[in-house]
Amino acid sequence: MQLHELYSSLAIRNDNKILVFVIDGLGGMSHKDYGYKTELEYANHPNLDRLASQGTTGMLTPVLPGVTPGSGPAHLGLFGLDPISFNIGRGVLEALGIGLIPGPTDVLARGNFCTVDREGVIIDRRAGRIPTEICEQRLAVLRNIHVPQADIELYAVQDHRFVLRLKGTDLDGDVENTDPGAVGAKPKPARPRIPRAETTASIVNSFLDQAFVRLKEHSTANALVLRGFSMLPSIPSFHELYGLRSAALAIYPMYKGLARMVGMDVLDCGKTISDQLQTLKTHWESYDYFFIHYKYTDSCGEDGDFLSKVNHIETLDSSIDSLVRLDPAVLAITGDHSTPAGLKAHSWHPVPLLLLSPTCRRDGSTAFTETVCARGALGNLESKYLMGLLLGHALRLEKFGA
Amino acid sequence: MQLHELYSSLAIRNDNKILVFVIDGLGGMSHKDYGYKTELEYANHPNLDRLASQGTTGMLTPVLPGVTPGSGPAHLGLFGLDPISFNIGRGVLEALGIGLIPGPTDVLARGNFCTVDREGVIIDRRAGRIPTEICEQRLAVLRNIHVPQADIELYAVQDHRFVLRLKGTDLDGDVENTDPGAVGAKPKPARPRIPRAETTASIVNSFLDQAFVRLKEHSTANALVLRGFSMLPSIPSFHELYGLRSAALAIYPMYKGLARMVGMDVLDCGKTISDQLQTLKTHWESYDYFFIHYKYTDSCGEDGDFLSKVNHIETLDSSIDSLVRLDPAVLAITGDHSTPAGLKAHSWHPVPLLLLSPTCRRDGSTAFTETVCARGALGNLESKYLMGLLLGHALRLEKFGA
Repeated sequence: MQLHELYSSLAIRNDNKILVFVIDGLGGMSHKDYGYKTELEYANHPNLDRLASQGTTGMLTPVLPGVTPGSGPAHLGLFGLDPISFNIGRGVLEALGIGLIPGPTDVLARGNFCTVDREGVIIDRRAGRIPTEICEQRLAVLRNIHVPQADIELYAVQDHRFVLRLKGTDLDGDVENTDPGAVGAKPKPARPRIPRAETTASIVNSFLDQAFVRLKEHSTANALVLRGFSMLPSIPSFHELYGLRSAALAIYPMYKGLARMVGMDVLDCGKTISDQLQTLKTHWESYDYFFIHYKYTDSCGEDGDFLSKVNHIETLDSSIDSLVRLDPAVLAITGDHSTPAGLKAHSWHPVPLLLLSPTCRRDGSTAFTETVCARGALGNLESKYLMGLLLGHALRLEKFGA
Repeated sequence: MQLHELYSSLAIRNDNKILVFVIDGLGGMSHKDYGYKTELEYANHPNLDRLASQGTTGMLTPVLPGVTPGSGPAHLGLFGLDPISFNIGRGVLEALGIGLIPGPTDVLARGNFCTVDREGVIIDRRAGRIPTEICEQRLAVLRNIHVPQADIELYAVQDHRFVLRLKGTDLDGDVENTDPGAVGAKPKPARPRIPRAETTASIVNSFLDQAFVRLKEHSTANALVLRGFSMLPSIPSFHELYGLRSAALAIYPMYKGLARMVGMDVLDCGKTISDQLQTLKTHWESYDYFFIHYKYTDSCGEDGDFLSKVNHIETLDSSIDSLVRLDPAVLAITGDHSTPAGLKAHSWHPVPLLLLSPTCRRDGSTAFTETVCARGALGNLESKYLMGLLLGHALRLEKFGA
């Protein structure tokens, strides 16, 4: 039995509300330029600290020790799904990131324009990162390619990147990348990994043959490669699993898409944390579980901008009380993963977790920081256990065994 | 390989004794009426605190984060068996609770008298909680029902509740409840979940047909429903697994039954903790492993009586030194699960653990409380790992690999 099946088998319904505030990339790393503090340790956040002293803290390990998660696995974990069992392909994630909702029989791939020489050998894997509008122009001439057995849709993402969607009835995503992964080689044909994917591979190859002819006239961005062929994984919804009416308040498309994947209603919530909080209040009575996603901490981490990340933490600290005033049965404040400014990237470091509930054991935490939470009473848990804790504290799990 | 098989494969024999003191429902929850302390934090227990400072502490999670265990799974965990793999059915547990020892081919079910109207529709699922003596009278007229292929035994439990035991050679417990779970419906016939349980279901139905005829004349408690059909799981004994001669000192039948399930000798140990300690001394030389069970902390928790739970903790604190004076190689003091007075029920909260042994690493714990143990050096472990720790500290596990 998988973890979510165990939790699902015990789930009962009541009126207790669960509110999960995900501060993207929350965790940091000791930074030598700032007294070896992390962003969260350097920032001033009296409200978070006060909540820590009233609740229980701990750490979440997104996947396993040392493993840096992408946004997909990181959120699946927070949603109670084992991120190793439920794999979201790159194609699907790229689609979610631009607001596309893949149908259950679609195959998605992430596309890159690249530049090849006269022999078709790749000399620039990213085609000089052409502007998005050039990408859009190239896609325009590829859109009227027709192949039997599938409709092909193409969506520009950014620079040289785009999404390819195949719509058909007999498709399978188990197809190898056509990207050879290095300059000096030609784009590869699509090859099926399993017999069921043969049709899909042949559709892709028929598309590629025609595409290469149409792109030939250009000196740059005159070929393309495809990676991460994938289909939407079959994921049970929060409602099926736990009887939770759930809603997401996310600003960026990818997080909306991830929430939709587990059956959350995606609420239109504006562009700022204030907009999100206003939307939360408006819909408070209509749902049992709310997922609020705050993006900017991650973006600053990715930019290596320690102080901006600090500022964003301080800004959201002043919004925390509005969450508390809604009086959820359980409030969890955490991140999907760490994004230390010192690494300019997602990292494997565990993420601080703060749980506030009348059913909490106050554990004497004095602040909401990595160091304090690492000694919190919840210990260091894989993120996938958070869902059980939330349901438990909301008294939404019945006793296991007699 | 399951965990107990790994430990078993490494087990060696020596003279080191292991003593496990299980304080039922030990863990609590911050209680707002008592300065947000738990029962264990509020209580005065200088002896436990002293032992904590001489040993190592940690927390046990009975099953998994957020999951509240029944007594069965909670004890299986403490006995080193994965409570998810080894499931004890409700019928078996109810039987153990009244001191019945199911044979390996018996099927047990938990029975309830209920009240039905003239059409046989349930109008009171608990038959007004009839006194146990009425339950006993109803059972008396059902005891001479005969069905082919099995002997039927009926035992009153309390109020409207009883145990049904089927004795036969070809029985299987994989039968659905006959309880429709709500008023307004008729009791259902027994249905097999697997082909092997068809005989059992037909035996049960033949019993039910005759029982309904005999109960018809009454205006209340004039029907019955059966739940939790189950057989004793096939559980290896402590002696087979670890070469441990083991004994249980429990006062309540259910814990005696659970101990017997893993092959412990159940010692006659009176009614109080003093009686238990006396029995322990008497049998000290005859066993390698002792399980002492203290019930009243759980009962007070279930009653929501914070201060009585505090009192019981203080009372048993004064008995702790008698355990230490026996000089076991390993003394573990913990609970099977938490029962916070604030919840009046078992809960999912981890349980404090104190381990005292000459092989311990003293971890600087200053008290035996949830807050201190949550920061103890053993960390937060699933209960099933306790058995390995006990054997390890008793030098009863040989090296794994070369």
